[in-house]
Amino acid sequence: MKNINSFFSPKSIAIVGASPKSGKLGNVLIENIKKGGWRGKLYLVNPKYAKSRKDYFSNLSKIKKPVDLVLAAIPAPLVGEIIGDGAKAGPKIKNFVIISSGFKESGIEGKKLEENLQKLAQKYDLNILGPNCLGFTNPKEKLNATFTDGNLRQGNTAIVSQSGALAVALLDWAENKNIGFSKIVSIGNKTDLDESDVLNYLVRDKNTKAIALYLEDIKNGSGFMHALAGITHRRPVIVLKAGKTSIGQKAITSHTGSLAQNEEIIEAVFEKLNIISVSNIEEFQDIIYYLNSNPVPAKKEILILTNAGGPGVMATDFIGKSKNIQLLNLSPDFKEEIKKYLPASASAHNPIDVIGDARPERYQKALEIIAKKYPKYPIIAILTPQNQTDPEKVALIVAKMKKKLPNLSVCFMGGEKIARAKIILEKNKISNFENPERVLAVIEKLARYRENAQAANGFDHSEAIPKIHPIIKKALSEKRNVLFWRETENLFRKYTIQLTQSVSCRNISDLKDKKISFPCALKTDDPAITHRWEKKAVILNIQNKKELEAALEKIKKTTQVENFLVQPMAAPGLELIIGMKRDPVFGPVILCGWGGTFTEIFKDKAIFIPPLTQRGIESKLSQLEIFPILKGFRGEKGYDIGAISKIILNLSKIASENLEIKEIDINPLMIYNNGQKGIILDAKIFLS
Amino acid sequence: MKNINSFFSPKSIAIVGASPKSGKLGNVLIENIKKGGWRGKLYLVNPKYAKSRKDYFSNLSKIKKPVDLVLAAIPAPLVGEIIGDGAKAGPKIKNFVIISSGFKESGIEGKKLEENLQKLAQKYDLNILGPNCLGFTNPKEKLNATFTDGNLRQGNTAIVSQSGALAVALLDWAENKNIGFSKIVSIGNKTDLDESDVLNYLVRDKNTKAIALYLEDIKNGSGFMHALAGITHRRPVIVLKAGKTSIGQKAITSHTGSLAQNEEIIEAVFEKLNIISVSNIEEFQDIIYYLNSNPVPAKKEILILTNAGGPGVMATDFIGKSKNIQLLNLSPDFKEEIKKYLPASASAHNPIDVIGDARPERYQKALEIIAKKYPKYPIIAILTPQNQTDPEKVALIVAKMKKKLPNLSVCFMGGEKIARAKIILEKNKISNFENPERVLAVIEKLARYRENAQAANGFDHSEAIPKIHPIIKKALSEKRNVLFWRETENLFRKYTIQLTQSVSCRNISDLKDKKISFPCALKTDDPAITHRWEKKAVILNIQNKKELEAALEKIKKTTQVENFLVQPMAAPGLELIIGMKRDPVFGPVILCGWGGTFTEIFKDKAIFIPPLTQRGIESKLSQLEIFPILKGFRGEKGYDIGAISKIILNLSKIASENLEIKEIDINPLMIYNNGQKGIILDAKIFLS
Repeated sequence: MKNINSFFSPKSIAIVGASPKSGKLGNVLIENIKKGGWRGKLYLVNPKYAKSRKDYFSNLSKIKKPVDLVLAAIPAPLVGEIIGDGAKAGPKIKNFVIISSGFKESGIEGKKLEENLQKLAQKYDLNILGPNCLGFTNPKEKLNATFTDGNLRQGNTAIVSQSGALAVALLDWAENKNIGFSKIVSIGNKTDLDESDVLNYLVRDKNTKAIALYLEDIKNGSGFMHALAGITHRRPVIVLKAGKTSIGQKAITSHTGSLAQNEEIIEAVFEKLNIISVSNIEEFQDIIYYLNSNPVPAKKEILILTNAGGPGVMATDFIGKSKNIQLLNLSPDFKEEIKKYLPASASAHNPIDVIGDARPERYQKALEIIAKKYPKYPIIAILTPQNQTDPEKVALIVAKMKKKLPNLSVCFMGGEKIARAKIILEKNKISNFENPERVLAVIEKLARYRENAQAANGFDHSEAIPKIHPIIKKALSEKRNVLFWRETENLFRKYTIQLTQSVSCRNISDLKDKKISFPCALKTDDPAITHRWEKKAVILNIQNKKELEAALEKIKKTTQVENFLVQPMAAPGLELIIGMKRDPVFGPVILCGWGGTFTEIFKDKAIFIPPLTQRGIESKLSQLEIFPILKGFRGEKGYDIGAISKIILNLSKIASENLEIKEIDINPLMIYNNGQKGIILDAKIFLS
Repeated sequence: MKNINSFFSPKSIAIVGASPKSGKLGNVLIENIKKGGWRGKLYLVNPKYAKSRKDYFSNLSKIKKPVDLVLAAIPAPLVGEIIGDGAKAGPKIKNFVIISSGFKESGIEGKKLEENLQKLAQKYDLNILGPNCLGFTNPKEKLNATFTDGNLRQGNTAIVSQSGALAVALLDWAENKNIGFSKIVSIGNKTDLDESDVLNYLVRDKNTKAIALYLEDIKNGSGFMHALAGITHRRPVIVLKAGKTSIGQKAITSHTGSLAQNEEIIEAVFEKLNIISVSNIEEFQDIIYYLNSNPVPAKKEILILTNAGGPGVMATDFIGKSKNIQLLNLSPDFKEEIKKYLPASASAHNPIDVIGDARPERYQKALEIIAKKYPKYPIIAILTPQNQTDPEKVALIVAKMKKKLPNLSVCFMGGEKIARAKIILEKNKISNFENPERVLAVIEKLARYRENAQAANGFDHSEAIPKIHPIIKKALSEKRNVLFWRETENLFRKYTIQLTQSVSCRNISDLKDKKISFPCALKTDDPAITHRWEKKAVILNIQNKKELEAALEKIKKTTQVENFLVQPMAAPGLELIIGMKRDPVFGPVILCGWGGTFTEIFKDKAIFIPPLTQRGIESKLSQLEIFPILKGFRGEKGYDIGAISKIILNLSKIASENLEIKEIDINPLMIYNNGQKGIILDAKIFLS
């Protein structure tokens, strides 16, 4: 992982492509840095002006003084040369922000130019942000190293965006809402520095308490997991992942050239890392907005104060639908106390209804009593502008009470009549949501985050030592990429996974002295046939020797193969499928789901991201819809969940120790709740 | 259903409780009516001022001229008397808006007062809106008959709200967004006029093209269905139903006194009526906002124009997740044409990316080409305020192009930099959403609405003639509320529903000459035992006569009953449950779902609201998750769906013809895909 601590706190910056002409990109960069108030040394580079103007250098190598960072805004074909100049300059320049576009995102020519940047970064050990990016800001140091003007307000949240345009929109939105950031980093095409490098830096940045990322792909899965493992229980990391659908991925490819990724695996990784995964821009903004003026709530029980019944009910309904948050149960003393200040028809239950005629004093009294009894709980004060309502005064009261109620947020609903109150709220950094459901959606996500953060993170970084197993060696030497049954059986046995008993044969005579239990099944054991059902390479329910002989004749004719297996028919039970495959970004992942026809209809499956623990597997298995059945539903006996999770754990061991194995399919594992042990009826191992 | 056409267009109004003192509710009402500009005759009633001021009457009966409507804002205990006065006045007064609170919502005393209002309404054939309501507005006639000032802008959408406070917030929000309404009606406690009466009026109101309701309960199910049947295919009706969770319902009860209702049934009714059911305030507002400046889109293929890749991808992802909308497939000519005006690196695919440096002219050119080729499609123009962007100019271009693109809406993302552009957009009635997902969520709902509206509505209003069947008569005379097996069998047979064959017996001797097929099941046939499993009142898998005899001895001892049934064991198949129950609001509803353990885990069921047609039932059955299995999954044989829907249809006939039947349970119906006919293994009929 790259060390880029100096990157975002330069003492000196050179702008390559600087221009004295207003409106030019090279001029906008100068202006933004100056307006921001950064106190470092700024060098301007442009051969065009080097002769006529003293403050311009013709080339980076002419500066002769330390340059901590280069901002380049020149045509794409010239960028490589500039970087080379910098890398060879004395003193050597290491850090570059390439704002220019015209690279990977613009076609074949651009792709070549970008590959060159990557080579230069490796050759000279450079750090390159971009190309095709907005730059970054570091508000603490008053540095706006982007081509968009505006917001340098300090805050606790860092933004990392793979879309420069979205970052621009976020900055402008934040400007209006009094939101500050610790850093904003536009990562553009990620040719060198990617989200993992930036995360690795940000998780160590003491000004950053939360990180919000907009990502269109993840470049380096293990880097990403390493950067965040063990961090997300201390700092919320929010990710808006674009390209969750195939047409979304197509849109990404067309504008960034990134490749499609497996979204189910990404979601499983996010869950494992306790990342707050949001599904749209609004959720993304709402969490940033909330965290700008509230800590992560310490409690999941919510208190609602309202002057309007309807919105109070909608808030209650939202809470009723959620598994992660609850309505705070008010104590009798508290109710007694607050009733004194409410009219007879007002409700002292939660939501506390101060009634439509509530004047500011009633809000104040209620908030004071709440602050005495429930200071640590998330409080939502709802206001609709009714006849006796004075939104501005209530806003001022809220601003005052916020000191005692750190998780107090509000919902002033309306438009014209609450406009001035909104300004008061914004000025005082009170998060004000247009409706109660939106703030509740934020609190719900943070509550789940907090709960998962408290559970053990369970990341085990002991790495397995890969080795080539003789069985695999043999198969590879024979240019086979599927193992025979016996090979699979032997390999599995080393990891204590047992297959159903089976007798191999080529002819009926091979079975003469063998004990066969009827009814039995006959199937091919040949790497060429991977989908036996489709190839009619399996015959079930064979009742006796005679039928078996006939079956063998028949299957030989249909399939034209030589090796067969005879296996006892398994009693009907619950079918599971378990599999391992290697994701190009995240490495081995294990899948377990309800088998048979139901797999495809109910899509009831769980994805496991190694490294795994038995406990982690069982907690993940509990997300399966059929888990209540596995556990024993309504007095029925349960299944051996421990045995299932053991298979999953061992598959992940096989995957980490045998890098040549590309895929493993166990289909089905038949399990029982009558004491009988589960049986793997079929399994296949594919090599890469 | 009430005829209230004159209610909302009065030529004369009397305000009871009128006051000359500024700030008093009775004065606010006068001021609002005057400020609105209504041109009718206004009478002020208040005995307190009748002597000192000429313009005040002491009593309604003193007016002696026609009064079309009374607005009452006096203490609750006085309301009944005033209504009586009005009803007995000459000319008689028929229409009342009771703004006063202090009725059902405030306790036992209030409930009595409210019951009195209801009696008066019936006795004198009056129309009473409220009590505990905001009143109503009729912008066309410049009438603001509420106690909130502001918005009387005309629009096409009517609002009906069971929460006055929410209506206030909506009005104020609409003020800021240049949104108009055809009517706003606050229905309060709904003691007389309820949502159905108001809907019945609004669906005939030529100024109303869409109706948006906030409801906490539905008072009269059949009135509601009758008011909307056959309407929702011409006019969108949007409902925000509060109280969807048990804690939400509790909150409602505490502030309005309404009773909890079955939300699953309400959702099934909404679906049947093609109501657009929204789940939060934001969705509710967004649809109202969109319809304020766009017609219901005629197409479900969407075209996106953007200067920002990220938001374009998020929009595409939203579309990718939806079943109801699609990305418009652009024709090659169109792409050729638009490419001429875009830079080389811009994308002419959908989303059309005009790139971050797009000046207003590029937006204009793109929109012009779109208007030529795709004028009827929903278009979303996304803008982020980048360096070369001029949001105000783009806003003006959009305003101009809107004439040619009726479903053009925009997403100007940001804050400060788009503030002035937003004002231009609002002034020109262009719907501008904060992010693309929100406008897409609206278009998606309208697209589904439109698709369902095009399908036949299938409402059959031929009513069944109820009769008391002798079987039911007999049971009732014996004070039984469950039928015996033979009774159920006979009643079902009349509706062509067949039960599994069975032999009745009291003793083993009864079975001597009977043909019993083994294996068989033995169970009790006694109304007292409704849950046989729990009472050990069923023995399965009896293999022969001897076992049967032993089983009979055993079951007699355990259950202490006298009547038993012997039934053949059914082969294992797919289990369904089918049931009928009477909802207190909507009458008989039928439920069909996947049976056994899976019912409870997967909750895979469908609710059918009579009147039903075979085709309607089958389309509803297709929503079951197991429907692919019923239909025949991946080459497997399908089940007889026609037979299932016939049972459902016949249950609804039984329900409509036999009003004494409270509930019917068929559990299970065992069905097969091997040609074998489905068998009902158990069924119970409960009387009320």
